[in-house]
Amino acid sequence: MNQKEIPYKIYLEESEMPKSWYNVRADMKEKPEPLLNPGTHKPVTLAELSGIFCEELAKQELNDTDVYIEIPEEIRKFYKMYRPSPLVRAYCLEEKLQTPAKIYYKFEGNNTSGSHKLNSAIAQAYYAKQQGLKGVTTETGAGQWGTALSMACSYFDLDCKVYMVKVSYEQKPFRREVMRTYGASVTPSPSDTTDVGRQILKEHPGTTGSLGCAISEAVEAAVSTEGYRYVLGSVLNQVLLHQSVIGLETKAALDKYGIEPDVIIGCAGGGSNLGGLISPFMGEKLRGEKDYQFIAVEPASCPSLTRGKFAYDFCDTGRVCPLAKMYTLGSGFIPSANHAGGLRYHGMSGVLSKLYDDGLMEARSVEQTAVFEAATQFARVEGILPAPESSHAIRVAIDEALKCKETGEEKTIVFGLTGTGYFDMVAYEKFNNGEMSDYIPTDEDLQPGFDSLPKM
Amino acid sequence: MNQKEIPYKIYLEESEMPKSWYNVRADMKEKPEPLLNPGTHKPVTLAELSGIFCEELAKQELNDTDVYIEIPEEIRKFYKMYRPSPLVRAYCLEEKLQTPAKIYYKFEGNNTSGSHKLNSAIAQAYYAKQQGLKGVTTETGAGQWGTALSMACSYFDLDCKVYMVKVSYEQKPFRREVMRTYGASVTPSPSDTTDVGRQILKEHPGTTGSLGCAISEAVEAAVSTEGYRYVLGSVLNQVLLHQSVIGLETKAALDKYGIEPDVIIGCAGGGSNLGGLISPFMGEKLRGEKDYQFIAVEPASCPSLTRGKFAYDFCDTGRVCPLAKMYTLGSGFIPSANHAGGLRYHGMSGVLSKLYDDGLMEARSVEQTAVFEAATQFARVEGILPAPESSHAIRVAIDEALKCKETGEEKTIVFGLTGTGYFDMVAYEKFNNGEMSDYIPTDEDLQPGFDSLPKM
Repeated sequence: MNQKEIPYKIYLEESEMPKSWYNVRADMKEKPEPLLNPGTHKPVTLAELSGIFCEELAKQELNDTDVYIEIPEEIRKFYKMYRPSPLVRAYCLEEKLQTPAKIYYKFEGNNTSGSHKLNSAIAQAYYAKQQGLKGVTTETGAGQWGTALSMACSYFDLDCKVYMVKVSYEQKPFRREVMRTYGASVTPSPSDTTDVGRQILKEHPGTTGSLGCAISEAVEAAVSTEGYRYVLGSVLNQVLLHQSVIGLETKAALDKYGIEPDVIIGCAGGGSNLGGLISPFMGEKLRGEKDYQFIAVEPASCPSLTRGKFAYDFCDTGRVCPLAKMYTLGSGFIPSANHAGGLRYHGMSGVLSKLYDDGLMEARSVEQTAVFEAATQFARVEGILPAPESSHAIRVAIDEALKCKETGEEKTIVFGLTGTGYFDMVAYEKFNNGEMSDYIPTDEDLQPGFDSLPKM
Repeated sequence: MNQKEIPYKIYLEESEMPKSWYNVRADMKEKPEPLLNPGTHKPVTLAELSGIFCEELAKQELNDTDVYIEIPEEIRKFYKMYRPSPLVRAYCLEEKLQTPAKIYYKFEGNNTSGSHKLNSAIAQAYYAKQQGLKGVTTETGAGQWGTALSMACSYFDLDCKVYMVKVSYEQKPFRREVMRTYGASVTPSPSDTTDVGRQILKEHPGTTGSLGCAISEAVEAAVSTEGYRYVLGSVLNQVLLHQSVIGLETKAALDKYGIEPDVIIGCAGGGSNLGGLISPFMGEKLRGEKDYQFIAVEPASCPSLTRGKFAYDFCDTGRVCPLAKMYTLGSGFIPSANHAGGLRYHGMSGVLSKLYDDGLMEARSVEQTAVFEAATQFARVEGILPAPESSHAIRVAIDEALKCKETGEEKTIVFGLTGTGYFDMVAYEKFNNGEMSDYIPTDEDLQPGFDSLPKM
């Protein structure tokens, strides 16, 4: 088909939406290392995992053999409320950049959670409901995941307890109110509702909290309450599996118009969006059918792939979760206080870590003022005010398009626009006022994190 | 076609998008009364209007003969960035209500302005650019219109000066930051940058501002600055014309599936969304081709249609704008401070006022706690957190669907979901905390507004 006929937004028909998730691990010849029990350092069993996660999700977590896993009818029904998401041809951005590159972005922000997180939230809530649970617990930082989960739980009439990093709870009352509107209870973390919370408050009375700490509280709340399980919005294999719906839709939309991408770009915090976006394309690469350039983009102030270590590490501060082999800055790492762009997690999905270590994917780190410059430029020509997280991918997409302008290459660039920035205006205000600065940690700054790596 | 095949979201193809706006006045046998010069009380001329508005927009304002007006190519290009908007079948809401009614909503919130306002903003910015102007001025209350206009001006590289009602400027810093991100300058109103602002500040030093006052300031700023014109986001004929894109898309989507609506519902502040949504259907009714029930929904605390007078009135506090014959509470009317749901304007589009007066449309007023109850119910089952304004329409759509449940009628209900409530969480918080109260003004409460009606 002639490229001129490509519309601004490619929407799949409902009948073209994926009926199964794609499990990239099944196509990996070398599998990611297993999760380890934090006490015994032996691979966790299904029984152990099922104490923390819903049983079906624990199975998905350990399943590295089934290529496709069917999406239950009830989840597909929910997906139809806000999916398929559009694959947008960035005609206006291309024109502004005067680039011969063709730029597409998969936009996941057209739902009230404001991001792709809903894709996994609804799956996790569904399996919790199926298992007859009363509710789930989770942590949230900026609030995207907590919002997505509260929406999903409200739909299935499940109780939802969110531990929200205290500094966000106080600075983002609107996110908190969205969660409450969906019926969730939101507790600032650390709190006195858990042992680990009380312990942290005792040791650090003035702390404003961290994601790792909120995870520990949420896990404790789940395992100590009858009928509850813990759910997590990124990093995990099951999350990447659910998020494969992004990549599957993207691939179907591209295939529909005969478009072959050259470069696929995604921001990377824990890896949920990037993993979901690239997985079906990575599958083709792993099977030797096609080749693509994949680029993970992370903040220079939280550079787990580009400057971290590939090692077994704790996923949480309280060290109650299984150990994962991943690129990590150490569970003791905390990004600089001036960092405003999200993607603050110390580690990275084990699947992505393995693919990166095997040379199948690249990674780049970018500084935040350059990220907000790209965000503003994008907002003005494409009409969507992007989330700071997503803007990491925009930055590199623009950089790649500008390279094409120099070389004259007509590359096709696809990136993931994970969400909108409507609840991030404090960061935009800082940028608009010229008060945003960059910060690249020194090797010494990173050392305290590495010191927290488990001795094993 | 079998109704069972109707997807959750009906998207038109780009090729099916409207190429012309529909001008309902051309089909009205009895035309709305003309705008009057506030000094002479004679119908305003094109020359007079062109001193305030761009010339092409002044022409559109006075044009009650052309049925269709072509949408310029550049505007259609911009529309493609965020349109067509989906017509959503509210399957989940229907199931929740257990109603035999079929409910559809046209969702205009999937763009960064968060509402339908962008449809007219981009048109007004385009004509300003065409005329070689440097920039435009406007007022904004909650900030939806100001945001839409700042996006449109940024796209055409026009200067954008927004006078924002002071209380909103202070309480909604995030809306302000979105406008600044799009390059607009935002001034709290009343301000000392205009004569009328200084006058109001002198007379009412502690005032938190009003929409009528911000309009006066924006008009003064436009007419006193070389190369600037004033633009307005509602009430005007030109705005209803541009917003007809909502109704045209809705009708095309319904026609595509052979769906015949019985009831069409929209919230009504100044009338921009309601007028745009119903106009092509009203055209059929006016031409005697079909019949529909139209319902305008307004807040009980600002009941211009249900309790106002059909009279010539000022559109602004400073009385610099032309007089319009409309349903009005008087330009001196200010809604109760406890009102949190938007739709605060004292008057109503002249076109809609005339249609209502001629018995072609109904109107209902609803109280705000009932509105937020409907908003929350809708958010939980349909996955979209609606704007308080839009939720007025949701309230009546739910009421109508529940009536169908009683009577067993399988009515097809269509309503306009004008936008999202992401910047309205202060109001939701009030509701979530059980701190929201209702207020129905007494006839005496309304009297000061009526006292401000012009003597003529």
